[in-house]
Amino acid sequence: MKKWFTLLGMASALSLAPAAQGYEVDEVGSFHIGGRQVTLSGLPVKEVQFVAGGLVTKIDPNGEVEAEQMYVQYVKLANPKARYPMLMWHGGGLTGVTWETKPDGKPGWQQFFLTAGHSVYVSDAVERGRSSFARYPEIFKSEPVFRTKKEAWELFRLGAEGSYTSSTQKTAYPDTQFPLDAFDQFGKQGVARWVGTDPLIVAAYGHLLQKVCPCVLMAHSQGGPFSIQATLNAPDKIKALIVVEPSASSDYAKMDFGRIKDLPVLIVYGDHWKDSERWVKTRATVDELAASMKAKGAKVDWLDLPAMGIKGNSHMLMMDRNSDQIAGLIQNWLAKNGLMK
Amino acid sequence: MKKWFTLLGMASALSLAPAAQGYEVDEVGSFHIGGRQVTLSGLPVKEVQFVAGGLVTKIDPNGEVEAEQMYVQYVKLANPKARYPMLMWHGGGLTGVTWETKPDGKPGWQQFFLTAGHSVYVSDAVERGRSSFARYPEIFKSEPVFRTKKEAWELFRLGAEGSYTSSTQKTAYPDTQFPLDAFDQFGKQGVARWVGTDPLIVAAYGHLLQKVCPCVLMAHSQGGPFSIQATLNAPDKIKALIVVEPSASSDYAKMDFGRIKDLPVLIVYGDHWKDSERWVKTRATVDELAASMKAKGAKVDWLDLPAMGIKGNSHMLMMDRNSDQIAGLIQNWLAKNGLMK
Repeated sequence: MKKWFTLLGMASALSLAPAAQGYEVDEVGSFHIGGRQVTLSGLPVKEVQFVAGGLVTKIDPNGEVEAEQMYVQYVKLANPKARYPMLMWHGGGLTGVTWETKPDGKPGWQQFFLTAGHSVYVSDAVERGRSSFARYPEIFKSEPVFRTKKEAWELFRLGAEGSYTSSTQKTAYPDTQFPLDAFDQFGKQGVARWVGTDPLIVAAYGHLLQKVCPCVLMAHSQGGPFSIQATLNAPDKIKALIVVEPSASSDYAKMDFGRIKDLPVLIVYGDHWKDSERWVKTRATVDELAASMKAKGAKVDWLDLPAMGIKGNSHMLMMDRNSDQIAGLIQNWLAKNGLMK
Repeated sequence: MKKWFTLLGMASALSLAPAAQGYEVDEVGSFHIGGRQVTLSGLPVKEVQFVAGGLVTKIDPNGEVEAEQMYVQYVKLANPKARYPMLMWHGGGLTGVTWETKPDGKPGWQQFFLTAGHSVYVSDAVERGRSSFARYPEIFKSEPVFRTKKEAWELFRLGAEGSYTSSTQKTAYPDTQFPLDAFDQFGKQGVARWVGTDPLIVAAYGHLLQKVCPCVLMAHSQGGPFSIQATLNAPDKIKALIVVEPSASSDYAKMDFGRIKDLPVLIVYGDHWKDSERWVKTRATVDELAASMKAKGAKVDWLDLPAMGIKGNSHMLMMDRNSDQIAGLIQNWLAKNGLMK
């Protein structure tokens, strides 16, 4: 336990610093990467009046379109203190916004790690947000899947299964760190997702690694498995891997982790997963995965928050009230692993 | 003409400056604004396996969701040289990416105006990009409308009507300023749009003005009419209005511009609109609109680029090769109107 207390002490000191200071930016910008041209045919031409009283436009959806690309936004520091830029990959039904803000309006982890000296690349997985979805069923095969507020509340462990009846009738875990007054605001961050697009997402992430890395890669939830696949596909591009509340399946433990021998890997997990059958299963596959990585020589560390005495964190722990404390622990781990100048 | 030459001279000098220097940032972040809770019912429950080999999830789309919100991303400078932050509103079928990058990979206008000393807010109109679309037909009434590359090429005046047969067979205007090698890259920036959502978009923009203004507002294409409506709804919030290649309808000239007496308004238009019947009509409504504003005392200036000897600019002039030159002219106009410290 001594090690954890030391880490915690450092984190509290560090978490006070970021809010107080600005940083010198060289460039803010974005790009799209990956994807392909698709030619559509046989679709009906439609007449559309976009503006009431405006011109009627004939819209012919047939022809060439771009599809399956990914959006990446970057903030490049003039004088980064980190050795490598940091990539931030979000989870299912969400976008890069996960990292940009907290629903209570306080600064997100993007701002935290910028202040700590990392150039940061935040992306939207293929199909989501500014990456754009493609026509379906012509290009994407499934219809879009939307998440209700009830699903977010329960799946993200703000309260137990069945604890959300309506926005005015819901029960949170008494010790939750999620800013409950901002739950509606969090609901506004959600976007539709599609089924069967995983290979497209992993392909685009692969292009990103080739373009901007070597990097430190941080991934959340559904982004966890994507980050593991992408790292195994390009192990020389990743200098440290931080998986925050990863989802996984039992297939992941079977992957060939010999390729990432000596890679520093940090797994971060919040609280209350034991209260959900679904999360108990997910956590078991993550434990398996961690053991499998470790067996092949990856340097796997855990921030198992409740085991460290940090209670009440949700699945969205980068938005929880103590998010700076957790970011500080991650920052210390990066420093300890030689990833700061 | 003397006035234009002076402006141009200043712009060339200024356009060299931004690339060379960084800027001190206080905070990068984002928020969602506006929107409402909608309760869905009567929809079928589906079983979905998001990850091959992973858990099967029962997805019940019924219940409460958030819809019709808008995404806003900001970069706040530590020491802005501008008196007010700048809002950037994009056009139809696109997102805030319009301002963030040029398809040739060079810095976009967001970076230009940050470097020139403006804190910048870039948003995605309701339904698009990170704002998220809502289920349809349950919430949005139309299906999504996608834009082909042919439509973008011709509508955005890279070449004449009928000049695009395929990505390998297309003819640009010989003097075009658009970086043609990057046209496929530009195609990746497109997102679907919906019909009938204008009132939602204007409502969300209205919330934004109340939250972060007084501001300078810059809007492109479809964003032009939205910016005019939003300004008339909250005239005290807007200190200068820059409309870049606005679309419009004849209804706009009839609005009550008495509310924006003395407001500095700048209309920016590129080249080759005379070569398109559609654009000749659009431009006529913009001329009408400008005259109507002027008659009520708004201080309307034009950057009519071809009339100033700047030839070949497309509808996407913030992405054209000479985009910094045009941004420089806008920056000079802002300075001339007392909007810099």
